[in-house]
Amino acid sequence: MTDRDVTLSSAPTPDRGDVVVISVDAMGGDRGPAAVVAGMAESAAVNPDIRFIVHGDEAELRRLVGRRKVLAGRCDIRHAGGVVTMEDKPSQIVRKGDGTSMWSAIESVKTGEAGAAVSCGNTGALMALSMLRLRKLPGVNRPAIACLWPSTNPQGFNIMLDVGADIRADAPDLLQYALMGASYARNGLGLDRPRVGLLNVGTEEHKGRAELKQAQDLILAAAEAGRFDYVGFVEGGDLPSSRADVIVTDGFTGNIALKTGEGTAKLVGTLLKDAFANSIMSKFAAVLAMTSLKRLQKRIDPRRVNGGIFLGLNGTVIKSHGSADATGVSAAIKLAFTLARSGFQDRLAARVAQAAASAPGAEAAS
Amino acid sequence: MTDRDVTLSSAPTPDRGDVVVISVDAMGGDRGPAAVVAGMAESAAVNPDIRFIVHGDEAELRRLVGRRKVLAGRCDIRHAGGVVTMEDKPSQIVRKGDGTSMWSAIESVKTGEAGAAVSCGNTGALMALSMLRLRKLPGVNRPAIACLWPSTNPQGFNIMLDVGADIRADAPDLLQYALMGASYARNGLGLDRPRVGLLNVGTEEHKGRAELKQAQDLILAAAEAGRFDYVGFVEGGDLPSSRADVIVTDGFTGNIALKTGEGTAKLVGTLLKDAFANSIMSKFAAVLAMTSLKRLQKRIDPRRVNGGIFLGLNGTVIKSHGSADATGVSAAIKLAFTLARSGFQDRLAARVAQAAASAPGAEAAS
Repeated sequence: MTDRDVTLSSAPTPDRGDVVVISVDAMGGDRGPAAVVAGMAESAAVNPDIRFIVHGDEAELRRLVGRRKVLAGRCDIRHAGGVVTMEDKPSQIVRKGDGTSMWSAIESVKTGEAGAAVSCGNTGALMALSMLRLRKLPGVNRPAIACLWPSTNPQGFNIMLDVGADIRADAPDLLQYALMGASYARNGLGLDRPRVGLLNVGTEEHKGRAELKQAQDLILAAAEAGRFDYVGFVEGGDLPSSRADVIVTDGFTGNIALKTGEGTAKLVGTLLKDAFANSIMSKFAAVLAMTSLKRLQKRIDPRRVNGGIFLGLNGTVIKSHGSADATGVSAAIKLAFTLARSGFQDRLAARVAQAAASAPGAEAAS
Repeated sequence: MTDRDVTLSSAPTPDRGDVVVISVDAMGGDRGPAAVVAGMAESAAVNPDIRFIVHGDEAELRRLVGRRKVLAGRCDIRHAGGVVTMEDKPSQIVRKGDGTSMWSAIESVKTGEAGAAVSCGNTGALMALSMLRLRKLPGVNRPAIACLWPSTNPQGFNIMLDVGADIRADAPDLLQYALMGASYARNGLGLDRPRVGLLNVGTEEHKGRAELKQAQDLILAAAEAGRFDYVGFVEGGDLPSSRADVIVTDGFTGNIALKTGEGTAKLVGTLLKDAFANSIMSKFAAVLAMTSLKRLQKRIDPRRVNGGIFLGLNGTVIKSHGSADATGVSAAIKLAFTLARSGFQDRLAARVAQAAASAPGAEAAS
């Protein structure tokens, strides 16, 4: 495989001056199209370079978009009558999902009209449709979903993948996750030389499953050509730490860890609220501390780190949280915009192709 | 296998009126024997019914124990010159660990002198030695480590197992974890009919790994005889929730989830501290809210839920956190005391034997 193949097979990035077009699936989220359009409006208000193609029920979208002045002339509405629900099985959607807004949203990335797609819908169905329509990148066996994790690192976040694209991952899959995660860290977080760690139950060499030891050898060998540093095994406690920028794991473990972290943060938040509601004195204190507490909330607000990105396909697809409100949708759109504008998709494709070809002297991609 | 076999094979519980003897490994923790003896003193001060056998360097222990009046006449010191370090491999310790304080501490449970053992040392070595000396309960394939997880349930905690005894678990192992976890919930948390959930990446029937679907069928079939309710698949976000009291998973996933939860709570704590240190106003607020914040801290303080219990052996062994201070050690000792006094060990053995014999009409154990 050559670099030319890779360039041809990846979706072209739209190039109309500085304008970036994002394809948005308006349906299928828990809060319906109103929340999605509100999120688009939030993004449009702060980002003059963004345009949208929005997919869903035309009459409803026309009404919702018409109410937002900031979206006037920047929003192309595409009718799709079908909606993928949270209960639909991915296998069903693959067979008969072609009239849905989700299918239509992915199609705009496939044709090259949009630089990336965003959907709040059913994760399994979105991954299945994305794989069907965009196809896997040459050299990729299992695509992955990467999430951002609040951390004590200077950039404020770590990247973890896979968080649920596939429940299995062999050693070569984990190597590809490392390469794709490092590329995402460079283009999404602006890290020149990301530090990659492999999630395990201990940091000692002899711990964990056999495939993790194999993966460790593969990742270590690929670090120099992949322009990242491998920091070794990391533990669950390192996910929010500064030991690594990219944490690699299989989709089963990653999904459990992600939801455990979210659940724990939520519990602490609830207990904190209870603590402050406990007495007149502490209620008064809460009022005084409002600014600080809001800053904290902003920092750990899952809506603001909203957006799992699908890596390893011929095109960029962002999965927003199903329950995302306007703020959450806007965060996912911002991530899509950043990645589309950086040319991330082509760089990632080149990086994976380079590793697959195992060419030690290959030209450096990003 | 009959009930009589089970009773004979489990370690006898000491019966001297209300007194319970706990065997304590004083060495091998990150803070050394001083922290351990301080924890024993904390326990002794609030619990007149507790006695200790403490294992480690005799001269040092004599000095440390001598300084604590509350321990006078309640503490039997057993000399053991060897110390298991955090770096020792379990396989080495199994071959030549018989002069260590850890070995000696387990021995006191084996002989029946103590009702339970507590150690802050190397988890892998403690499990390996416990398996070697106490042996697995008849009917148990893989012993497990169970931890307590702060939750919104009325009892304040959920139980999760396995959190790291073994990195693998087949469907029959997961069934045994469910039985042992339910028994622990009854005797340790006082729940009459615990609700058991199986950790997975989604709550839908069709999600997750094949062995989880098999395990689900086994657990469901055993619920009535095991006197627990099976609530189905649960997700990472349910660990601190009120959906279940006992959460069953393999040791790899459980260990990652446990450390992820601890790491997340720690990050939120750090950010909260930063938030309150941010301005004069918020510093003032923090002083006003001190009582509430301390109550919150107490609730989520990992030291107060300290103590992973080894389930599935002929004897009760509690693994305290390696970095436990006096408060942490005291919490682990309290758990050991509660379980030893409740006769938990014999009840668990009977429960597992009953399930292994698959006798539908068997007499109810607890």
